[in-house]
Amino acid sequence: MLQNDMLESWDRENFFHPSTHLAAFARGDAPQRVVTGGSGSYIEDREGNRLLDAFAGLYCVNVGYGRTEIAEAISAQAHELSYYHAYMGHGTEASITLAKMVLDRAPDHMSKVYFGLGGSDANETNVKMIWYYNNILGRAEKKKIISRWRGYHGSGLVSGSLTGLELFHRKFDLPLTQVLHTTAPYYFRREDRNQSEAQFVQQCVDDLEALIEREGADTIAAMIGEPVLGTGGIVPPPAGYWAAIQAVLDKHDILLIADEVVTGFGRLGSMFGSDHYGIKPDIMTIAKGLTSAYAPLSGSIFSDKMWKVLEQGTDEFGPIGHGWTYSAHPIGAAAGVANLNLVDSMGLVENAGNMGQYLRDGLTDALGGHINVGDIRGDGMLAAVELMADVDAHRFFDADDKITYQIVAAMAEDGVIARAMPQGDILGFAPPLSLSREEVDEIVSKTAKAVTEVLG
Amino acid sequence: MLQNDMLESWDRENFFHPSTHLAAFARGDAPQRVVTGGSGSYIEDREGNRLLDAFAGLYCVNVGYGRTEIAEAISAQAHELSYYHAYMGHGTEASITLAKMVLDRAPDHMSKVYFGLGGSDANETNVKMIWYYNNILGRAEKKKIISRWRGYHGSGLVSGSLTGLELFHRKFDLPLTQVLHTTAPYYFRREDRNQSEAQFVQQCVDDLEALIEREGADTIAAMIGEPVLGTGGIVPPPAGYWAAIQAVLDKHDILLIADEVVTGFGRLGSMFGSDHYGIKPDIMTIAKGLTSAYAPLSGSIFSDKMWKVLEQGTDEFGPIGHGWTYSAHPIGAAAGVANLNLVDSMGLVENAGNMGQYLRDGLTDALGGHINVGDIRGDGMLAAVELMADVDAHRFFDADDKITYQIVAAMAEDGVIARAMPQGDILGFAPPLSLSREEVDEIVSKTAKAVTEVLG
Ligand SMILES: Cc1ncc(COP(=O)(O)O)c(C=O)c1O
Ligand SMILES: Cc1ncc(COP(=O)(O)O)c(C=O)c1O
Repeated sequence: MLQNDMLESWDRENFFHPSTHLAAFARGDAPQRVVTGGSGSYIEDREGNRLLDAFAGLYCVNVGYGRTEIAEAISAQAHELSYYHAYMGHGTEASITLAKMVLDRAPDHMSKVYFGLGGSDANETNVKMIWYYNNILGRAEKKKIISRWRGYHGSGLVSGSLTGLELFHRKFDLPLTQVLHTTAPYYFRREDRNQSEAQFVQQCVDDLEALIEREGADTIAAMIGEPVLGTGGIVPPPAGYWAAIQAVLDKHDILLIADEVVTGFGRLGSMFGSDHYGIKPDIMTIAKGLTSAYAPLSGSIFSDKMWKVLEQGTDEFGPIGHGWTYSAHPIGAAAGVANLNLVDSMGLVENAGNMGQYLRDGLTDALGGHINVGDIRGDGMLAAVELMADVDAHRFFDADDKITYQIVAAMAEDGVIARAMPQGDILGFAPPLSLSREEVDEIVSKTAKAVTEVLG
Repeated sequence: MLQNDMLESWDRENFFHPSTHLAAFARGDAPQRVVTGGSGSYIEDREGNRLLDAFAGLYCVNVGYGRTEIAEAISAQAHELSYYHAYMGHGTEASITLAKMVLDRAPDHMSKVYFGLGGSDANETNVKMIWYYNNILGRAEKKKIISRWRGYHGSGLVSGSLTGLELFHRKFDLPLTQVLHTTAPYYFRREDRNQSEAQFVQQCVDDLEALIEREGADTIAAMIGEPVLGTGGIVPPPAGYWAAIQAVLDKHDILLIADEVVTGFGRLGSMFGSDHYGIKPDIMTIAKGLTSAYAPLSGSIFSDKMWKVLEQGTDEFGPIGHGWTYSAHPIGAAAGVANLNLVDSMGLVENAGNMGQYLRDGLTDALGGHINVGDIRGDGMLAAVELMADVDAHRFFDADDKITYQIVAAMAEDGVIARAMPQGDILGFAPPLSLSREEVDEIVSKTAKAVTEVLG
């Protein structure tokens, strides 16, 4: 219906695409793909290509494409009531129901959920509420936020400061001064090659303690971390990491934000990464898997401990000065309700654990012995293959060679979408949680083929 | 379908509502309203109330509620393809079409649109791109952003810093240091009561010049302003304001962001506030009227001048490190296309001008002579009634008396929703642009009745 022959030029003339080489795209030198449909793990484009999406969009289409149950829920909500705001105690049946469903799934000590649009704005909400919390407690100086190098928490000005990746800082004057970074829990890339995993965890703890010591615990409000590093390389934590880190934070009365935007609602084969690794967060950030991206919706879940102080704040100072016009948008809420029901009824949390393991086993069988494969890792339905120029010498490829970009392009030609993670030569996989064995086999064989094509 | 008897308690136990007294709401002391449907200018709630929404949600449901054309477009998109990302040159027919439609409507010198989710994140994008722009131009120091007191630009950490209202700063440690505020162009509240409108404009210019002088023009990147102050009080600019301000900015090579989140797509009886007041912005922020809130979508429109520098940046440094997972979300894009078509086919830009004038005339006839009415103002489909304890002495009510909240509550009892603007006793009106004469008459008579009820 919207199709026409001008679409390509309209696109290049008018559309500022995110994470794109703007000049090359406008000139027509960078690729363009108009996506027209999808079903299960596959998408289709306007040229008639059909591709297995082994990254589920941006690790968000957890239930897979084309689920009629969610489309119907969106349609019904759009016809009933597309919008009303949630300010001053307003809600809709969908948003209230979803709030209840989220808290039913979250750890017991969590109390309330604020609904936003995307992961970035949810992390903004978190920082804002943490500053408010410490102001209400009379701790005016306790405001800095610690994040980790290679963390990804968004690309706004504060959320992009929390992010610990060069691409999102360079030329943007980030990070802002309120944010500090500590060591990435990335054992494979440890500086001291002789460290055991346990020694490396101790290193992470020592580095965090030293940072807190240097800045003063009374200036540090919170630490944020993804249960598994995502965009920074798809890196599960070394054994014992979270318990050790949480002990340090508790000692210094520093809050913990578990950024569960990728890991929430089943991706690790558990409902949340916090369950999976025994983390006890004060705030949980959720997005992606909350609606499987069928409509924008994110959330910030606050613990009882924090909520009590937020309540005290409004008793002292009146209504909280925070809100987005589209907070708890009914279309997103309706999509969320249908999506979480589908996650349950399709048994996707369990399938993510099983098929994810089968995927990593398959990649290991196919590529574990390849001369350029340094590491194959992951957890649940997350997997990564890290490529190196020389594995024995632990030498990485030159970024300018764009090795992983070449592999990803070869795979796309062959009908499978994987992601070249932005920092390092890391091939990332985060397929829909509904993935089948046959689809795993297709991903594995086409990955091995492309790696061989590019690297021999 | 989602209804059940537990809804009220689910809401109070689990849902963190924006802009709400959190403690009172959780205790059950603050009102709750579950909105279930809407049609034209009216919404319905779960108790069976039907209310004329004279604030169009949060001045966003511009085409009115229950428009089947948009619900059908959302439904069709949800069934075809609910989501794919827009990173690295990906798009959908809806998002590309909407980009073209936005640029067709924007002033000629605008070049490209980046799609976000809400107005707050769009303003984040703007600041990020402005910093990048000046870094590419080698002007590392030119980074501060000037906003106005009483401006509203969002409630994130940076967007909330741009906002110039106490509620959004207090206890949140805002504004951040990168943001400066200058005089609100609010003639009715000028300090020097003897100033003519022209003298007051000169005062605004002088204050801006003094601020630039104090900070140094080479440290100031941009100024942001709403064509008409919105949440700060619904205040159209004094005559000649924008031309005078723009001349100062041009002289100092300071960019101008026109925040058209409220004014965009017809609210003033013109397509944009920039057209209406002869502003020539470098960036325009859009949201609300872009989709009439049927689905979340915002935008940042960049001028040719800025776009060229952004292109240069990606030629020098590669892909731009900016993006939201839900940038250019297909559901929002489909809603936007249907919505802008409806704005055209229903003739809403013209109707907003006509019915808006009729509304202000009606309010003036009914309340112009009231002893507590200090000012009745507005432009297009925006109107405000400012209440005072003593008009002759120009004395305002005590905020603790909550006069406007009482009036708004009385109006809601009587079936009309108006808004108590957050700073001052200002009764705000921003109805759907599709408003009819009969609906204007209902708003006017019920407003007059409630004002008399509360103030005599
Ligand atoms: C862990 C994590 N947090 C936050 C975000 C930001 O979410 P969004 O892109 O929706 O703003 C992402 C996005 O990938 C993420 O992976
Ligand atoms: C002029 C203006 N800019 C920005 C915003 C922020 O938009 P949002 O609430 O969608 O974040 C608003 C919201 O009312 C607004 O009125």
